[in-house]
Amino acid sequence: MTMSLEPIGRIRTRYTERRETPVQTALNSSEEGAVELDAPYRAGLVELETFDYAWLLTWLTPDPDDPVPATMQQVPFLLTEQRRPIGLFAMRGPRRPNPIGLHLVRVLNVTGEGFTFGGVDMIDGTPLLDIKPWAAPLDTPHGDQTVTIRNGWFDTVDLSGPHTPQSLRRVDDA
Amino acid sequence: MTMSLEPIGRIRTRYTERRETPVQTALNSSEEGAVELDAPYRAGLVELETFDYAWLLTWLTPDPDDPVPATMQQVPFLLTEQRRPIGLFAMRGPRRPNPIGLHLVRVLNVTGEGFTFGGVDMIDGTPLLDIKPWAAPLDTPHGDQTVTIRNGWFDTVDLSGPHTPQSLRRVDDA
Repeated sequence: MTMSLEPIGRIRTRYTERRETPVQTALNSSEEGAVELDAPYRAGLVELETFDYAWLLTWLTPDPDDPVPATMQQVPFLLTEQRRPIGLFAMRGPRRPNPIGLHLVRVLNVTGEGFTFGGVDMIDGTPLLDIKPWAAPLDTPHGDQTVTIRNGWFDTVDLSGPHTPQSLRRVDDA
Repeated sequence: MTMSLEPIGRIRTRYTERRETPVQTALNSSEEGAVELDAPYRAGLVELETFDYAWLLTWLTPDPDDPVPATMQQVPFLLTEQRRPIGLFAMRGPRRPNPIGLHLVRVLNVTGEGFTFGGVDMIDGTPLLDIKPWAAPLDTPHGDQTVTIRNGWFDTVDLSGPHTPQSLRRVDDA
């Protein structure tokens, strides 16, 4: 089976260096970026403006300056200080067998050619693969609201951000 | 730029016909399915058991019996009755330029070879592309909790499910 992707547009942000790009949109939710959709896809934006949030799916191209392979256990940026490796499927880092990025953003101004959004953790020019509306009934667990949901190691780290790979670097790492 | 994907495993469910497969995991959250990971990726499961929920990213192969193209405006299954077309990027249907499925599931029993999960909207054998932990701080909007989030047309339909394409079919559609 052939599974190949085509970019439908690209992300515009003010970041050109990965090490200076914030980690996770939720930790940098007030900064604005933009989606530029290629012409054949623009008619797909109808009614997106009726959603407050959306998912962006992107292609996380390997860092040419740091082409680390997608090993099955890695130290997440947010655990740099502890140097604690985690299974790849229990973390959100960009080095994955299929490097698809999943970004929750706030939909701001939808135009005929794309939209601006709040929440930036992408480098400028990141290829866009898909946009899906975020909908509370689909994207949040439901059921007994008195039960606390376990979020693994994310429950143990400072998520007050913004953080970048560079800001999280250990002082003793040259 | 070449963007090609490789399956890392597959989804096991009891569904072999798309028209009988429930729409959206959230609307069929109590049913169980399984992830079978291929051997090279199994070491990536470490610590997934410390998360209650995870995202499955899948490849939504076109239906051989109903190869409808990924047009930019489509009628969502859940709006079949109204026959109301929506922009593709304001709906979650499977016919997309890059047919990547995004499924929120409850992590049940993690083994050395995969895991069982709650929440089924996939046909048996669906290729698996990625697993990411669901984490409340990353995957839910935050900020002013008194502001109601707008979820577009999802706010107007019956999400008590389970629904299937077949159950949502209009009576007057032969």
